[in-house]
Amino acid sequence: MFIDVLVERIEKVGTPLCVGLDPSLALMPSSFLDRFGITPDTADLAAGAEALFHYNLQVLDAVADRVVVVKPQSAYFELFGAHGMRALERSIAAARDRGLLVILDAKRGDIGSTSEAYARAYLAKSPPRELEVDALTLSPYLGDDSLSPFFAEAKRWGKGVFVCARTSNPGGAMLQDLQVDGRFVYEIVADLVHEQGRAAMGASGYSNFGIVVGATVEEQARRLRARMPGMYFLVPGLGAQGGALSTLAACFDDRRLGALISVSRAVMYPHLHGSAGTALVDAIRAALAGFSEQVRGAVRGVV
Amino acid sequence: MFIDVLVERIEKVGTPLCVGLDPSLALMPSSFLDRFGITPDTADLAAGAEALFHYNLQVLDAVADRVVVVKPQSAYFELFGAHGMRALERSIAAARDRGLLVILDAKRGDIGSTSEAYARAYLAKSPPRELEVDALTLSPYLGDDSLSPFFAEAKRWGKGVFVCARTSNPGGAMLQDLQVDGRFVYEIVADLVHEQGRAAMGASGYSNFGIVVGATVEEQARRLRARMPGMYFLVPGLGAQGGALSTLAACFDDRRLGALISVSRAVMYPHLHGSAGTALVDAIRAALAGFSEQVRGAVRGVV
Repeated sequence: MFIDVLVERIEKVGTPLCVGLDPSLALMPSSFLDRFGITPDTADLAAGAEALFHYNLQVLDAVADRVVVVKPQSAYFELFGAHGMRALERSIAAARDRGLLVILDAKRGDIGSTSEAYARAYLAKSPPRELEVDALTLSPYLGDDSLSPFFAEAKRWGKGVFVCARTSNPGGAMLQDLQVDGRFVYEIVADLVHEQGRAAMGASGYSNFGIVVGATVEEQARRLRARMPGMYFLVPGLGAQGGALSTLAACFDDRRLGALISVSRAVMYPHLHGSAGTALVDAIRAALAGFSEQVRGAVRGVV
Repeated sequence: MFIDVLVERIEKVGTPLCVGLDPSLALMPSSFLDRFGITPDTADLAAGAEALFHYNLQVLDAVADRVVVVKPQSAYFELFGAHGMRALERSIAAARDRGLLVILDAKRGDIGSTSEAYARAYLAKSPPRELEVDALTLSPYLGDDSLSPFFAEAKRWGKGVFVCARTSNPGGAMLQDLQVDGRFVYEIVADLVHEQGRAAMGASGYSNFGIVVGATVEEQARRLRARMPGMYFLVPGLGAQGGALSTLAACFDDRRLGALISVSRAVMYPHLHGSAGTALVDAIRAALAGFSEQVRGAVRGVV
């Protein structure tokens, strides 16, 4: 099942980093776009989608033997319509060809049979679908019965889900940090996932059902870690959003596991962070190495 | 702008009904699927997507001169991957060719530049995209700054958004009905949309920014209607989910406007509700006529 493969590979490769695939034409080097004959605001969606896919290939080639999992962000593909979704399908296949696990960051959530359709689209193994991934992110505003179809489908196929509990953005506080009868909303969500996740425990001691916790919210991360043994946290917000290493450390448990640290644009676009003159793949590897070292330091500080 | 066109057409056509496009192979007549040589669990995603599109065409032909707006549900298209998204693009084009407005029900929501990418994918007029629609549904769990990019893009192009406030499912209560300092969470969300929507008011007296309110939650609908003058409600839950006419009535304001009542499968699949032997288009029209009469009755009861 997803979580056991994830944990086994993390222990083998030695880093809990996840590389986000947020392909944005506006952030790619103009020399790269030139190869496709486009500018960032191109109306040629087929060519734009082709550029997304080929940029992802470079990132995948650079990181494949250094991390165990990548996280494509659906929005950047949807921006190119059906062409973009085809680029997403091809990117998923390319990641798998390189032995990587894939978490699709789509923050889906709806009611009844609509949630069922989303769950089948991304988590079912049969009939085979090119958008099938290993795990999917979910948004919980519509409540427990909106998540049930995802839990059921994930259980059926041994897949993972990560439900947004406390996200990394400042506005995350608006609803998620509200407190009712002594529990924060992010805890209410996490409690539900934790309880449901008992039916999806792996041999690793972790559940296939996890939560999203931002690297920017240290107090919430500490509370959640203490409350949620055996639950994996998907942790975005390092890099561009300024997440602190002490918050990362708070996300790990006493096995020095339990957290998957996601870095996206700071790794994907190293030329925006002072790597001019270096080949893209080398610059991506250097950026990734820097983050790996930081995260290893944070993990070592845990116990 | 979206809301003014919507209101003008609703007054002209005389019904506030919106037909949901939830194309599901499992609910289509087997004789229809036979034309595409597939069964409901086909692994041929291209043929499946073709069936979705052609079923939608029948629904659109049946309803185009009787309602003003349709609401495709993204999940059912995503289930067929890139092929499905192409079917969605073609369905949007077919709806527009028939003079219909299109609300995409996708319940998107993410942070910062990811929300920006979603907003551009569905709401921007330039560069032209085949997924461009008139309005988009949003999910607010990630808070105010997760919605801002959608508000900004909608404002820029005169488009609409409908943010989930109180949804029609029982589980909607879990987070949405929590009360903090005298305000329910669904009110906190609605207040934000209402406030932001002041900057997107149309000549009709309504804002381009509305909320989703289920036809199954009468008390919440009454509270929201009283609190939110000048705001349009997108109201699903009539038909399959058993929404009551008194709740529908509660969603309208004293102009007998302010609510868009969405019916999906009870109109799309009349053969499941006892129309055997009738041609599909005729059966769809009959089902729609029944709902129109019910809703007109509810609206007449308002003032």
